[in-house]
Amino acid sequence: MEPVLFYGVPHGCSFGSIVALEWLNQPYRLCRIDMLDKPKGYSRFNPSQQTPALLLESGETLGESLAVLHHIAARDLDRKLGFAQGTPDFDRLNRALAFLHTELHAAFSPAWAAFKVADGAPEKDMLRTMGRNNAAHSLAHLDAVLADRDWLVGNHRTVADAYLVGIARWAEDLRLFELARDYPRLHAHLQKLEADEAVIFAHAIEDERPVKSSGRFQSHVTVEELLPRLAA
Amino acid sequence: MEPVLFYGVPHGCSFGSIVALEWLNQPYRLCRIDMLDKPKGYSRFNPSQQTPALLLESGETLGESLAVLHHIAARDLDRKLGFAQGTPDFDRLNRALAFLHTELHAAFSPAWAAFKVADGAPEKDMLRTMGRNNAAHSLAHLDAVLADRDWLVGNHRTVADAYLVGIARWAEDLRLFELARDYPRLHAHLQKLEADEAVIFAHAIEDERPVKSSGRFQSHVTVEELLPRLAA
Ligand SMILES: N[C@@H](CCC(=O)N[C@@H](CS)C(=O)NCC(=O)O)C(=O)O
Ligand SMILES: N[C@@H](CCC(=O)N[C@@H](CS)C(=O)NCC(=O)O)C(=O)O
Repeated sequence: MEPVLFYGVPHGCSFGSIVALEWLNQPYRLCRIDMLDKPKGYSRFNPSQQTPALLLESGETLGESLAVLHHIAARDLDRKLGFAQGTPDFDRLNRALAFLHTELHAAFSPAWAAFKVADGAPEKDMLRTMGRNNAAHSLAHLDAVLADRDWLVGNHRTVADAYLVGIARWAEDLRLFELARDYPRLHAHLQKLEADEAVIFAHAIEDERPVKSSGRFQSHVTVEELLPRLAA
Repeated sequence: MEPVLFYGVPHGCSFGSIVALEWLNQPYRLCRIDMLDKPKGYSRFNPSQQTPALLLESGETLGESLAVLHHIAARDLDRKLGFAQGTPDFDRLNRALAFLHTELHAAFSPAWAAFKVADGAPEKDMLRTMGRNNAAHSLAHLDAVLADRDWLVGNHRTVADAYLVGIARWAEDLRLFELARDYPRLHAHLQKLEADEAVIFAHAIEDERPVKSSGRFQSHVTVEELLPRLAA
């Protein structure tokens, strides 16, 4: 069977992997994981139970967003979602991906932690402020980078743009910023991506609306249906 | 000039990049960055002023640990510090590196934040507990992974082992755990690495003791000496 992406809802960072799979234009399936009520059996594929994870043809499951995105890009370098190992653009893509995860994604963690803490709890404000300060730093960096380039890396869309569109939205989900006002260049870049067929598709998938794949999405499958594919 | 690694002290996560450069066995230089008193001019190389960063022959500076480690591995795949793009081991290495950074390194952040907060401040304990819980999770995962393998990925040392040895020590630096007691398999793996010439070298560099390179370390250079090499 073609690769299967386990993607998390609501508003998970798997979003970028769905976009990247659409762009790749190879057959794939999706398996929906409600992060607040994880399906029994998912831990057999990914012991950490995080999303995204990609079940490969070999029966092995690949966890960690950056590994999944790298894998998707490497499946067909001619699609230009990534770059050949050893080139300057390969380095720049790695830098962008690492920044997006280890700085931007990480910056939101305290704010997500605050979100889960009861209203009025003494640490709530502190965590939220911490998250806001960290995220402001990373968002300002992206806004500056996008001043003189059309895409995060190179002169075309890559898995870094796909990943960005899935996590930058947390700035507004968490009501920390208003991107159009606070980071206008980043906002414009995200608007451009929002008009992309693959991004429109990924939103429809998350929201369980009817979808039109511009890639080669085959169908949803359930964790139960996948159990027989587990590597021995 | 050969590549120059900007490494941060004290006890920075750049440690792994020094180890990887020694293992690579190509000429390189080092530039020491005191993170508590950053040298003027470093921001011209790396605007975020974080370490590590690698100044390349081209005059471009590559930031972000994962990008630096990927670059070092790709400089000579025959040294087997990484794997060829598109292979299963390339995926597994990406997964390991992403885990080490986005889970383990990230887990320590609240504990580092606690460390910087004044004693008695109300959030200190909360941050420390949060860091401890997160790190426990990641360290237990590593301890389990190392039960049936000699190296984090594949059957030989890679940049993932180099990176691990530089950040796992924070568990004891921050007095969160006693690795020998709490995570014995991880501890044994780290002990094995501590006996490696490159790791011994990296400690001597950090501590400003006399060094013996088993790789091709040339000399230290200062930020000032490097300014003429900035890309136009
Ligand atoms: N290090 C992981 C982190 C992924 C992550 O944070 N996933 C979130 C969704 S955005 C998740 O699975 N959360 C649920 C959980 O941790 O139980 C990666 O890079 O993929
Ligand atoms: N995302 C960066 C994080 C690096 C990082 O956390 N560096 C620390 C040292 S371990 C640092 O530079 N701290 C000083 C600072 O942020 O000002 C990477 O992956 O390299």
